[in-house]
Amino acid sequence: MTSAPLRFAHLDPSHSPGQQESTGGIGDSRAVDFSHGDVDAFPPPAPAITAVARAIDDGGTWAYSPYRGHGTVRAALAGRLADLTGADIDPASELLISAGTQASLYLAMSSIVERGAGVAIVTPDYFAYRKITGYLEARPVEIPLSYRDAGEPGVLDLAALERAFSAGSRLLVFSNPNNPTGVIYDATHLSDVYALAESYGAHVIVDQLYCRQIFDQRPFTHLRTLPGASTRVTTLMGPSKTESLSGLRLGVAIGPAELVSRMESLQGIVTLRAPGYSQAALMSWLAEPAGWLESRVSAHQSIRDDIAGVIRESRTVSARLTEGGSYMFLHSLSVEGRLDEFVDRLRVECGVTVTRGFEFGDYPDGFRLNFSQSHAAAVAAVERLVDFSDRF
Amino acid sequence: MTSAPLRFAHLDPSHSPGQQESTGGIGDSRAVDFSHGDVDAFPPPAPAITAVARAIDDGGTWAYSPYRGHGTVRAALAGRLADLTGADIDPASELLISAGTQASLYLAMSSIVERGAGVAIVTPDYFAYRKITGYLEARPVEIPLSYRDAGEPGVLDLAALERAFSAGSRLLVFSNPNNPTGVIYDATHLSDVYALAESYGAHVIVDQLYCRQIFDQRPFTHLRTLPGASTRVTTLMGPSKTESLSGLRLGVAIGPAELVSRMESLQGIVTLRAPGYSQAALMSWLAEPAGWLESRVSAHQSIRDDIAGVIRESRTVSARLTEGGSYMFLHSLSVEGRLDEFVDRLRVECGVTVTRGFEFGDYPDGFRLNFSQSHAAAVAAVERLVDFSDRF
Repeated sequence: MTSAPLRFAHLDPSHSPGQQESTGGIGDSRAVDFSHGDVDAFPPPAPAITAVARAIDDGGTWAYSPYRGHGTVRAALAGRLADLTGADIDPASELLISAGTQASLYLAMSSIVERGAGVAIVTPDYFAYRKITGYLEARPVEIPLSYRDAGEPGVLDLAALERAFSAGSRLLVFSNPNNPTGVIYDATHLSDVYALAESYGAHVIVDQLYCRQIFDQRPFTHLRTLPGASTRVTTLMGPSKTESLSGLRLGVAIGPAELVSRMESLQGIVTLRAPGYSQAALMSWLAEPAGWLESRVSAHQSIRDDIAGVIRESRTVSARLTEGGSYMFLHSLSVEGRLDEFVDRLRVECGVTVTRGFEFGDYPDGFRLNFSQSHAAAVAAVERLVDFSDRF
Repeated sequence: MTSAPLRFAHLDPSHSPGQQESTGGIGDSRAVDFSHGDVDAFPPPAPAITAVARAIDDGGTWAYSPYRGHGTVRAALAGRLADLTGADIDPASELLISAGTQASLYLAMSSIVERGAGVAIVTPDYFAYRKITGYLEARPVEIPLSYRDAGEPGVLDLAALERAFSAGSRLLVFSNPNNPTGVIYDATHLSDVYALAESYGAHVIVDQLYCRQIFDQRPFTHLRTLPGASTRVTTLMGPSKTESLSGLRLGVAIGPAELVSRMESLQGIVTLRAPGYSQAALMSWLAEPAGWLESRVSAHQSIRDDIAGVIRESRTVSARLTEGGSYMFLHSLSVEGRLDEFVDRLRVECGVTVTRGFEFGDYPDGFRLNFSQSHAAAVAAVERLVDFSDRF
């Protein structure tokens, strides 16, 4: 085998969520895999599942779509997505259906980033931003997010962002709510971030995968509602998280027509299209039965509160309260320098799988939980985790 | 919007199969879309569909898999794939499940081809080989396939292949059966091709998507059975064609462990994984009910024969008889210089959608049919096509 092409230098997925061996010892009934949500604890909305089953039976109608997705699905979604995000969408030119939000991210970044360019990436933030940047032979430029002071709103280091843009970066990519901390950016801060991008002619990709799951009635600002944003903002969303439909591999991207066109071209050589049958699930997305979303959000808020209560009692573990999404980013005073050992033993001895802080930046004392789990099992698992950390 | 990165120079999908507007005039009940197979005419095997529906109901068991695919599915498939292809497969290290054969192709090529390298690509052959090569900023080196003389076996130009390797190309990628001609390469010729690759230390990706659909009881040679081939051959297969499961987005790649590992890393940033629920369909792949495959192959052979009979009567259209797969590559004496007009008018005036020869190389008089269609509708559509060509 010839050696790997240069673009493979930073792609090792060994510690990525879902790549670990199955949690706990054999027969450990307490095992909780916090690396991703538990779709049995929070099943998908019934209409989505029914629609996919019906699409498979229909066969020819659904099997093949244009690379950018079925026209009927884009037409059905455009109005709902416009209502949710607060700005119009042309379903023919500004909306692409992809094989998952990860796929949207890859297509969008590859459609913008030139080899050798700098890419402004928030830290901590979703690990794939860095990996994709490396694969594209571009350079990540870190933009720190301050989140450790629970009393203060989470904000990006705007001076660092301006330095990145002035040194030539022409793309900022970040998640809102932030993965892994659950920070939501407020409207004023987003306006400041956007104004900087605009003044340097930069593009912004905002990954809003968890934007429907907002706690404590906080306001949530969609970046694309800012004046002029439709020409330089690409918004990624999908039904994989709150709606538990990750198993169908579906995402959407809303962006400028020129970018959506590039993304479609690239999707044509990468996966051809999102699974044709899966796309039927989107016909009822953002139009779930009354009360469905509210009930899902409040169930997660309640898990969050109980987990946070356990953490507050710990001598060694701390975490910022999640503002949106299902992630919580924990720090332990006892694991620095031994994070891999901690994570491995936590899994094997306590049946608790978490994702290492290193996946999100230089966080040798951090690890992430996805608390979209069975409520009681999650709380008990965090009790074991805290106990293990306090003894470690 | 900033200009497109260099890697986008050759990605326009406007003429790719499935990207055309819907066939025929509104209400043209005769319309046949030969750009891809009709899954209503040839539905998927029932056990595959049942398994997916059950997997969706099971939820957590199937939703998430390791990036390389569910271990249970790889274990179930490895033995059957080994039996089919004639050489052992380690399900843990040599087998990857991807989001479709297109995805396997992208992952495999990107895992081998260094920027600026030459890639030996057969002409005519599947258009995505050229597009992916361009996206990777590498150079296609054309290896002619001789197929026009129906009395002779289809063979690659071995002198051209040796020139490509001696000039530095370290990858050959080709389909067998060939897309678009339906040529099957015989064992002796494949040995010659492989010996050349071996002598230059080159890797070979062989796309065998249609390898189960072989006509006239011809022998079919799997490249990976040649001595030593497991270290330098990657075989792509999947249930999208003969088995009509394209709507699920599933493919497999069999290759050296090091390459499968790179492909998994890359899949981790491109789509994460093949759709978790879809993967359940592979539990019964290559183990369909008795007689299912034989019946499917003979139905296609019969369509092929009737279409070929219509073409033989034409003054202007000719085609080599398909040896395997559902493709036939037609040439018309009347369209050179006007292929786009011919294809457009054929679609609008006759309700017949075909794929332009330009998608497969420099074929200004050629177009491809996928004849996996309703038998009578396909024959009638080819009669209209021949009549249109004879008058054009």
